[in-house]
Amino acid sequence: MKVVISPDSFKGSMSTMSAAEQIEAGILAVFPTAQTVMIPMADGGEGTAETYRMIAGGEMIWHEVKDPGNRDILASYCWIEKERTAVIETAAASGLTLLKEAERKPDGLSTFGTGQLIRLALDRGAKRIIIGLGGSATIDAGLGCLQALGLQCFDRDGKGLNGGVIELGAIASMDASPLDPRLSQIELIIASDVKNPLLGSEGAVHIFGPQKGLKPDETDNFERQMSRIAELVVQESGQDMRTSPGAGAAGGLGFALQSFFPNLSLMSGFELIAQLSGLEQQIAAADLVITGEGKFDGQSMYGKAPIGISRLAKQHDVPVVVFTGRFEGTEQSIRQEGVHAVVPIVDKIMALDESMDQGEVLLKQAVIRFFETMRLAGHLTARGVKL
Amino acid sequence: MKVVISPDSFKGSMSTMSAAEQIEAGILAVFPTAQTVMIPMADGGEGTAETYRMIAGGEMIWHEVKDPGNRDILASYCWIEKERTAVIETAAASGLTLLKEAERKPDGLSTFGTGQLIRLALDRGAKRIIIGLGGSATIDAGLGCLQALGLQCFDRDGKGLNGGVIELGAIASMDASPLDPRLSQIELIIASDVKNPLLGSEGAVHIFGPQKGLKPDETDNFERQMSRIAELVVQESGQDMRTSPGAGAAGGLGFALQSFFPNLSLMSGFELIAQLSGLEQQIAAADLVITGEGKFDGQSMYGKAPIGISRLAKQHDVPVVVFTGRFEGTEQSIRQEGVHAVVPIVDKIMALDESMDQGEVLLKQAVIRFFETMRLAGHLTARGVKL
Repeated sequence: MKVVISPDSFKGSMSTMSAAEQIEAGILAVFPTAQTVMIPMADGGEGTAETYRMIAGGEMIWHEVKDPGNRDILASYCWIEKERTAVIETAAASGLTLLKEAERKPDGLSTFGTGQLIRLALDRGAKRIIIGLGGSATIDAGLGCLQALGLQCFDRDGKGLNGGVIELGAIASMDASPLDPRLSQIELIIASDVKNPLLGSEGAVHIFGPQKGLKPDETDNFERQMSRIAELVVQESGQDMRTSPGAGAAGGLGFALQSFFPNLSLMSGFELIAQLSGLEQQIAAADLVITGEGKFDGQSMYGKAPIGISRLAKQHDVPVVVFTGRFEGTEQSIRQEGVHAVVPIVDKIMALDESMDQGEVLLKQAVIRFFETMRLAGHLTARGVKL
Repeated sequence: MKVVISPDSFKGSMSTMSAAEQIEAGILAVFPTAQTVMIPMADGGEGTAETYRMIAGGEMIWHEVKDPGNRDILASYCWIEKERTAVIETAAASGLTLLKEAERKPDGLSTFGTGQLIRLALDRGAKRIIIGLGGSATIDAGLGCLQALGLQCFDRDGKGLNGGVIELGAIASMDASPLDPRLSQIELIIASDVKNPLLGSEGAVHIFGPQKGLKPDETDNFERQMSRIAELVVQESGQDMRTSPGAGAAGGLGFALQSFFPNLSLMSGFELIAQLSGLEQQIAAADLVITGEGKFDGQSMYGKAPIGISRLAKQHDVPVVVFTGRFEGTEQSIRQEGVHAVVPIVDKIMALDESMDQGEVLLKQAVIRFFETMRLAGHLTARGVKL
């Protein structure tokens, strides 16, 4: 039996890589001779660089940079020497998980560290930089990142506002001419599964603000500042990318990069990894595909991986099973996408916190139960029972 | 595919019969041509009479009798005319579920109604009475039941204490000579899976008192009264059944019946139904056995059915699958008993109350998921995949 293992992350509980490892361990516990192929998925957020490294065979490069709150941290990006390619995820230096609960207040937080990593990759000789947008703690319109790459911001009195803190309300003007020219001369790719525009009810502030700690009574003012900054960027760049799909990714970093780097191309995080890994060919050669994610709805509300995978598998008539912490879809929705079974990993009365803490154990146990049922079925068919 | 469906009850959530129906519905939803045989199990408690009726093909006979709190209620027993057999469960007239939470105070409550049902069955011409002990609200040493059958109790002043209220502390003497003589002339069977003695740390007061509403500070006094009453019964009956297995069943009704009716025989509730239904022959002819219970531990802490069934099935090399709301055992414990798989019915984060309310839906969905996995496995083996 050949099984492709290709989960998304179980956010808040375990990484994509860890989920893949639990699934593999569960399968091998029941069928020790099964051939397993692990292709952990990534959506541009946390784990994208590590997944890329695992598949492409590069290395992680560590640097001391600024975290979202302007403190020194060690952060890494993936470097593939033979292709002079860097994969940099905003989650590495500017991620929400770098902050304690009480520190999650977007005003003041900056993507400066992400810009530092980009500059360091350029210094290393990158000819291709893939920037994964997702999991950021920030809503700084990407200005922090661009400052690390040379952008100058000024207050009303013309005083420079540069460094690891971004208060949108204080910025009155900007000068993009010092931006690192190398960025316009290389292949620049944004990997993201976020399609939101910068502003409005579907924008960076309204949709992603609450999960980044923005309070309801701060939202309108934040949106006004973001709107004012967007006008400054439009003036300075000569491009209006405010309604471009993905402009709202990573607190507006999508918008900033799209505005100043016309050489930039956009790619979904799912497709980036799927292409790199030869996912479709692997699925075509498999007997079964196992995927999963923390929440699953039979569409792609929570992630691209399970649905993207099941669409590919359906084309090749390979059955797909989704393991999930919470299923919110219907029988019909999953059938349409080619999913054969949705298997819950929660196995008893428990609180959400406990299920998050125990996610790896629960996932592995659910996989074991599933494959034991398969084995029992194999046993029955060997006895002549028709299934 | 031939499947024997033989669950225990999911206490507090659904009856044995209802559990069997959900399991059957789940199987037929996936394999419409499966042959299913429903043999709901019973342990002497609630549902025993109804299960017996379903298998033996009798009828339920309804009468107005006294509930544990001396109120009139309609209660029924199972009657099989051709065998002149009555199956009377204490839960019917003296059950805990007949009382509201606030009414659950054993002192004063009586098994009088159960005695009335026995007398009514005798009046109908019963040659065989099976009394299912389990699920009672009472700890009256069985005196209420015996009073309905003729026993006379007296207080310190020789005043008669008869009727639907039993206060153990008030009873100073008793006279068993008026006991209905017909009871000694028929076949009398106790069906129960309780093996506890009457007194002590494993007795009726200490083990079953708390679930019947006895408060911790009442326990010692209650135990003293029970001990004193037991001595009176020993004197009056000339038998000492205080440490007999099952004396502690139904708040001491086991003790009272054993003391005054030497013609009585004891049977486990599981074996009663297993024998009646030809369970072993049905299992021997099946491809698969599905059982289940609310809580399952891989031994028989919560019920006899799943373990009794898996032992039978092991002898005939038929795989057993247990569906449960909560599994508290180990992989090893279930393997030893011949259980192939334990399948949780809880499928997401939920509170206990919700899982109880939703028990029937959860069970059916879990059965559907399980058999869909079997079908998927059948599909893979048809493609030549070895499982």
